[in-house]
Amino acid sequence: MQSFDLIVLGSGPAGQRAAIQAAKLRKRVAIVEKGHELGGVCINTGTIPSKTLREAVLHLSGLRHRSMYGGSYQTKREITVQDLLFRCEHVIRRERDVIRAQLQRNGVRLFEGVARFLHPHAVAVDDGFNTTELEAPHIVIAVGTTPGMPPGVVVDHQTVLSSDDILSLPRLPRTLTVVGAGIIGLEYATMFSALGVAVTLVERRNEILEMVDRELVDALTYLSRERGMTLRLGEEVATVSVSAGGDGVVVMKSGKRFATEMILVSAGRQGATAALRLENAGLAADERGRLPVDGVYRTEVPHIYAVGDVIGFPSLASTSAEQGRLAACNIFGEPLPEISGLFPYGIYSIPEIAWVGSNESELTANAIPFETGVARYKEIARGQIIGDSEGLLKILFHIETRKVLGVWVLGSQATELVHIGQAVMAFDGTLDYFVNAVFNYPTLAECYKVAALHGMNKVRGLLGSSAELPDPPGNVLGSAT
Amino acid sequence: MQSFDLIVLGSGPAGQRAAIQAAKLRKRVAIVEKGHELGGVCINTGTIPSKTLREAVLHLSGLRHRSMYGGSYQTKREITVQDLLFRCEHVIRRERDVIRAQLQRNGVRLFEGVARFLHPHAVAVDDGFNTTELEAPHIVIAVGTTPGMPPGVVVDHQTVLSSDDILSLPRLPRTLTVVGAGIIGLEYATMFSALGVAVTLVERRNEILEMVDRELVDALTYLSRERGMTLRLGEEVATVSVSAGGDGVVVMKSGKRFATEMILVSAGRQGATAALRLENAGLAADERGRLPVDGVYRTEVPHIYAVGDVIGFPSLASTSAEQGRLAACNIFGEPLPEISGLFPYGIYSIPEIAWVGSNESELTANAIPFETGVARYKEIARGQIIGDSEGLLKILFHIETRKVLGVWVLGSQATELVHIGQAVMAFDGTLDYFVNAVFNYPTLAECYKVAALHGMNKVRGLLGSSAELPDPPGNVLGSAT
Repeated sequence: MQSFDLIVLGSGPAGQRAAIQAAKLRKRVAIVEKGHELGGVCINTGTIPSKTLREAVLHLSGLRHRSMYGGSYQTKREITVQDLLFRCEHVIRRERDVIRAQLQRNGVRLFEGVARFLHPHAVAVDDGFNTTELEAPHIVIAVGTTPGMPPGVVVDHQTVLSSDDILSLPRLPRTLTVVGAGIIGLEYATMFSALGVAVTLVERRNEILEMVDRELVDALTYLSRERGMTLRLGEEVATVSVSAGGDGVVVMKSGKRFATEMILVSAGRQGATAALRLENAGLAADERGRLPVDGVYRTEVPHIYAVGDVIGFPSLASTSAEQGRLAACNIFGEPLPEISGLFPYGIYSIPEIAWVGSNESELTANAIPFETGVARYKEIARGQIIGDSEGLLKILFHIETRKVLGVWVLGSQATELVHIGQAVMAFDGTLDYFVNAVFNYPTLAECYKVAALHGMNKVRGLLGSSAELPDPPGNVLGSAT
Repeated sequence: MQSFDLIVLGSGPAGQRAAIQAAKLRKRVAIVEKGHELGGVCINTGTIPSKTLREAVLHLSGLRHRSMYGGSYQTKREITVQDLLFRCEHVIRRERDVIRAQLQRNGVRLFEGVARFLHPHAVAVDDGFNTTELEAPHIVIAVGTTPGMPPGVVVDHQTVLSSDDILSLPRLPRTLTVVGAGIIGLEYATMFSALGVAVTLVERRNEILEMVDRELVDALTYLSRERGMTLRLGEEVATVSVSAGGDGVVVMKSGKRFATEMILVSAGRQGATAALRLENAGLAADERGRLPVDGVYRTEVPHIYAVGDVIGFPSLASTSAEQGRLAACNIFGEPLPEISGLFPYGIYSIPEIAWVGSNESELTANAIPFETGVARYKEIARGQIIGDSEGLLKILFHIETRKVLGVWVLGSQATELVHIGQAVMAFDGTLDYFVNAVFNYPTLAECYKVAALHGMNKVRGLLGSSAELPDPPGNVLGSAT
């Protein structure tokens, strides 16, 4: 039995961050990762591969260049799955190295193998040859998730794939059905659609992306259909099977059925707690394998914490990392770092979506009087230059105080641009900041100025005086309508 | 003689903005633009064409993809000048339409022709056929600049080009000499270098980009040489000529001489005031054709203002537009809009450079004790994904208050990213903002967090307590070192 101050189960963003934070506090830390998947789903099968694949898709498809060179323009004529995946392997290898070096540098002990609880303060790690026993007064569970499968769906990694199979995609299909329009499903559906694959997206619910502002969801839906995607919302899959010819066959509960070369099932994810023997720790996961926690990420057993995707929403690498950091600080009685409640969110669909703060429906439901200012990429020089005529940026602001309440971006660089709005909101800034700030020209960030002028113009009448208000938007310089 | 409340000479960002602002204040405004160059140098020969060309270069050269696919990777094998310029014409046409529509919508009268002062309150506009006379109690001069030529240099638009000739580039040369390493010279030199052209850059001064932080200049210099550029700093051109065979021949004052297929002369720009007959208005330009102004952009003749490139530094579209807006407000006694003194700056070289606030030398000269935090793109996931291993982001902050004093970025999206730092600085934010904020993953904006943690770590010892300080950088999640 080896003793530590802290055992962390899982080396994804949440576990990594908890381990490093504890090590920085001079604690002896063990981190356990099953197999050779240092970095977890994030690095190995999820975030990093999908975002790298996306970058390769954007480059090789020439999608952003079609408004210049014509609708059929493609950077590379015959795009193979090798073209796409080459880049992923390069990035994954590099990222794993970074994490390994960092754990070593901080003196964190890494144990590779499958962990299970022996009792509330001890785990056994089985690497297939040997079993190592570890004990500690505190344990952080950061084991992440595995793809959830609807009853009756069997993944064969050839015709029926889960989202974790993307790196072993056998070939680029001509037709693809994506089951589940959550964030992951949407990201892959739009990515394959950009490559010219005929994609059908099936979703049980009638609405997609319920947390996202409707204007952006409507735009994404419209643009996806424009690119040839078929959306089947409010429809449930009854069975998925493989025909004698090797084609996938999807049968819907409504009786519809269709053949498709491949099926990607992205029907939510389950906490990867099945092998943990949680009962030995006095814990129980919910029906989706998830662990409930309190506000400081403590489970029902007070010395055991859970962080990251295994606790559910928002399941983002960025927030998971902060949870890990907070949990470690809390365990060792450190003053908690001051974390802004203003999380930015990003969805790497094509086009990408990002936001910070509230959406229109939330503000309306809370009876907060707001107005909006919108800028479209096609109105500004940078949008023209990069050939993005679809993008838009929307600022929601309080109609009286002009305080910024939310920023929503759809289009190129959305996930980067949203951080400007986040900073202004963090300092309780108003729309006036964007009206008066000077932005580099030509940049997409100018959208903030154009949107702010648009919004300011709408409330001009309400304010009584027009003298100090700037002019409306619509111009090459954002500022100069 | 037609009467107006305001005559604006020039329709670039500065003139446009002055005219529109005055029109919004319900004034009768005339704007004069020579030829058919609505939008001025910015739209027709300068900013917009060069930035559009740059985007085409980045795409067609595949430069950003070489770290993945190998150093000789190129998106398009044989890049022609038509491939590059096609896109420019598309964007220019669109931008001119936007400006024309906007002037019409706001009731601004457009006069196309060459303007000259008749007396301090009147100008004549000659379109080659007719002369129209305009008068107004106020005049704004926003005529911009034309390329300056060193004595003895004759532009033939075939072998010897000015930076205004880029749209009529006859072909892509194998060798190019760029004379003058100002912003424009550098942008074109790095752009052609990225296309594989053997570029020689000649500059009279020993230093380039004197306003830019040395660390970034050193990086740009190093990377330019790595890509095969020859830099001849501290060397002056004696003569430029064309050989019988059509090659350019450059003779340096030091006696060196070399042949080069094309020569691009970018030796500063002159105020385009030569044809204005300034003496009729009681004005005189300096030896570089520029007009001196006071803090509210008023010339020596109090009812005549000058804005934009014709007054010199900083000569950026973004700042010029704000100058136009301020001048119009001041002329008509409007309360001046509150303009932040925090201008962001951008240089669209490859890699691009952007900054806000002070550089190291300025702070050192002013005895302001600062520390720096640096993040490198190759350390963060997004940098790996997009294949930018050169980029860096540096935050300068006060060693005691941790107030952010400057942000410097070199690399992909630099001109966009700098706006995050600008917002934090505008609200007097400290390094702590970046330490505690959550950033979308994977984004380049994470560099702010990594750089902040790096900087915070350096001052940890000085602060006495380490408890509340976060850990050092170097990690996949920025936050989790």
